[in-house]
Amino acid sequence: MIKVIASTLLLLVTFFCAAQNDDSLMIRKIAGEILNNSEAYENLRFLTKKIGPRLAGSQGMVKSEKWGYERFTKIGADKIWMQECMVPYWVRGGKDEAVVSYIQSANKVGVPDARLQKKSLDVIALGNSMGSGAKGVTAQVVEVSSFDDLEKKKNAVKGKIVFYNYAFKKDFVETFDGYSDAVKYRGNGPISAAKYGAAAVIIRSISHGENNHPHTGGTRYDSAYPKIPAIAVGLQDADWLSNQLKQKKTNMTIKTYGYFKPDTIGHNVIAEWKGSAFPNEIITVGAHLDSWDNCEGAHDDGAGCVQTIEILRAFKAIGYQPKRTIRFVLFANEENGVRGGNKYAAAAKEKNENHVFALESDAGGFTPRGFGFTSKPEVFAKLKMWENLLAPYGGSKFLPEGGGVDINPLNRTLGTTVAGLLPDSQRYFDYHHARNDVFEAVNKRELDLGAVNMAALIYLVDKYGL
Amino acid sequence: MIKVIASTLLLLVTFFCAAQNDDSLMIRKIAGEILNNSEAYENLRFLTKKIGPRLAGSQGMVKSEKWGYERFTKIGADKIWMQECMVPYWVRGGKDEAVVSYIQSANKVGVPDARLQKKSLDVIALGNSMGSGAKGVTAQVVEVSSFDDLEKKKNAVKGKIVFYNYAFKKDFVETFDGYSDAVKYRGNGPISAAKYGAAAVIIRSISHGENNHPHTGGTRYDSAYPKIPAIAVGLQDADWLSNQLKQKKTNMTIKTYGYFKPDTIGHNVIAEWKGSAFPNEIITVGAHLDSWDNCEGAHDDGAGCVQTIEILRAFKAIGYQPKRTIRFVLFANEENGVRGGNKYAAAAKEKNENHVFALESDAGGFTPRGFGFTSKPEVFAKLKMWENLLAPYGGSKFLPEGGGVDINPLNRTLGTTVAGLLPDSQRYFDYHHARNDVFEAVNKRELDLGAVNMAALIYLVDKYGL
Repeated sequence: MIKVIASTLLLLVTFFCAAQNDDSLMIRKIAGEILNNSEAYENLRFLTKKIGPRLAGSQGMVKSEKWGYERFTKIGADKIWMQECMVPYWVRGGKDEAVVSYIQSANKVGVPDARLQKKSLDVIALGNSMGSGAKGVTAQVVEVSSFDDLEKKKNAVKGKIVFYNYAFKKDFVETFDGYSDAVKYRGNGPISAAKYGAAAVIIRSISHGENNHPHTGGTRYDSAYPKIPAIAVGLQDADWLSNQLKQKKTNMTIKTYGYFKPDTIGHNVIAEWKGSAFPNEIITVGAHLDSWDNCEGAHDDGAGCVQTIEILRAFKAIGYQPKRTIRFVLFANEENGVRGGNKYAAAAKEKNENHVFALESDAGGFTPRGFGFTSKPEVFAKLKMWENLLAPYGGSKFLPEGGGVDINPLNRTLGTTVAGLLPDSQRYFDYHHARNDVFEAVNKRELDLGAVNMAALIYLVDKYGL
Repeated sequence: MIKVIASTLLLLVTFFCAAQNDDSLMIRKIAGEILNNSEAYENLRFLTKKIGPRLAGSQGMVKSEKWGYERFTKIGADKIWMQECMVPYWVRGGKDEAVVSYIQSANKVGVPDARLQKKSLDVIALGNSMGSGAKGVTAQVVEVSSFDDLEKKKNAVKGKIVFYNYAFKKDFVETFDGYSDAVKYRGNGPISAAKYGAAAVIIRSISHGENNHPHTGGTRYDSAYPKIPAIAVGLQDADWLSNQLKQKKTNMTIKTYGYFKPDTIGHNVIAEWKGSAFPNEIITVGAHLDSWDNCEGAHDDGAGCVQTIEILRAFKAIGYQPKRTIRFVLFANEENGVRGGNKYAAAAKEKNENHVFALESDAGGFTPRGFGFTSKPEVFAKLKMWENLLAPYGGSKFLPEGGGVDINPLNRTLGTTVAGLLPDSQRYFDYHHARNDVFEAVNKRELDLGAVNMAALIYLVDKYGL
């Protein structure tokens, strides 16, 4: 009996090792194809330089959808379609401004007389925020270091401009932890200030960068309170303003012009490749096609889009034939609505589709380090066994938490295992939602290696299921 | 008895866990100090922008040594000194040129008549190469794809210019593997071509970058053969030239002006901090202060220098007191002589010093991934136990191979365990020895994290010895 068990065990181990070896070779082949022949970088150049910003509703959105459809068509798939969804259509409406005015002391060196000084800060209105219009909001600025500090000063902010000067913490090694810690001031700052009667808010940009670029991003309102203007300011100007406020009372005039046009039609761009053995088991790999209006959206999330397209190209180039059905999806409207992601999940539910796995790349085109998963524990245990297969390509840190904004609805609706690519995070918040998120900020090899690791994971899920 | 063993074991495990916990807290403290208060980035700005190139023998070398001495003095150490060594003094001597001339076909669109065309390539003479002088070398170009290919064409290269067009392989995931594979054409190309009577060589730059910058770097000659001119050409121009040669015979004129002045005095800049418990056990941490003359030497190796200085600053800032003696060393002349590294080891041997460990950062200021060690196996086994302590900071991949050009002499001479920081390698050869190795190519957080991981490793070696 023991002999039988031992033989069976030996057979299983041998089989496992042989399979692992086959998988190593296949992943090596995928990697070679992508590292040598990738079109991701040139695709990204076109998307960022020829199309550029592509916020939901904009002409850039329309052009980028057409571009995505054409890329998929050129490579080829069994079915390529535009999945319609209504998207919000927020527009900036004008040039955002924040001008500080204060009395310059007469006795300062080089300034002969006391007089009114003005300084224009480098600012950008938060996405979804309502504009002040050309008349602007002029009021005294009250700095708060946190929401707790706001509570202490709640009787002093009525009619004032609240300046949230909460610094992105640099000692989190993973910058997304610093982002999670700080981003509540962008999301909830306007509501919290409006509750106490503030006239507008200005927030320290959610970044640790070394420059002065302001970083936008979505904010929200509560119907119980006024929709006050809300802008972000560059870090150096935030420091200047804080220093200024320590010395004297300071007024500011904020002018923003944001508003919503009626919802309009956007699309998820989808390429489907039928599986040969289990066509009803669907694997999704994707990224979001929209970007904020103030940048080229190279890392966020042009990188993920061209990686998604590259995986299809590379699989075709090496003659791969999937067992399961793989969908390559460029999602609409991640930045200020998630209408694309929600639509995709709703349609999947309506058609009673079996979605076994979904993977998103939406953390920048940097060197891959691993993947974060939201799954049942036993599924995660299975996934963990593949770490060693990805180790040579860098993406072997599998964490039991993760996914993507556009694919999380699949998990919530259908229980699908979802995963997000985890690239090196050190540079991401230098660029995130700022004017310097441009093509030049992306490195070709780092971008390609992301596609390599994603393709390898998709290959393993396709071969073995979950 | 079993009870006693069990108790002892429990005690040991408890002790080990408590020690690990203490170490975690100390490393956390070091990391916090560096990530929040690092001066490395501003030091790098000064070294690159105010001093700039600093090849051995140059005025930049002299200025940078003075700067290093002053930085150490400002922070403070028990002893700071300049360790003199004679260094080679190679100078470029003029503007390197490579001009291709060929007959343009008459029937090409837009070109009315057959006529002589000229095209200037983006080139740079290899370090240590001897110039052609202003008269230049004019000859037909013969392309070879490899040394094997040169062997086949050895009877066809006499009096010609040999064009080594060996491409840096992109499918090595770690780019240093691609570099090791290709760099022999830079190092040995001139000798191999001169052996068969070639008049000069032009090599495809040792890079996989997306631009056309030529990359220099040291080459060598053999006294048995003529010291022929040797230049590197940018990748896009290399592709153009190769394509040109497929169509027609092509001549080239190369003009370079390199020569050696007499050896001159350079210095290793050293700050020594005496150990409180084992002052005779010496730990060295360092980088090389010299750079090639065509760039700011930001990644190579300004980054390593400012990380070295930062570790001293951070240790002082948190009130650390080392048990062993730590030396912070900015080495002279790594790029074209290693005279500084050799001098340091020779002096150590002469004084019969006990060097237990040496660490170098010379692979760029990118996000750290680990360390490579050259040590006895039992020492490496001990080091491996610290991987988990470094994991939160990224530098936890400990490999049993590595060191640094400037500290390897310590290993060879005294058997010292040596280690090299292993940062992410994807971008390094975009910049290496090229004009774009400038301050702007370095990211502050990536640079600081390198210092964090180096400091943590130094702390562990200082506490526990090797």
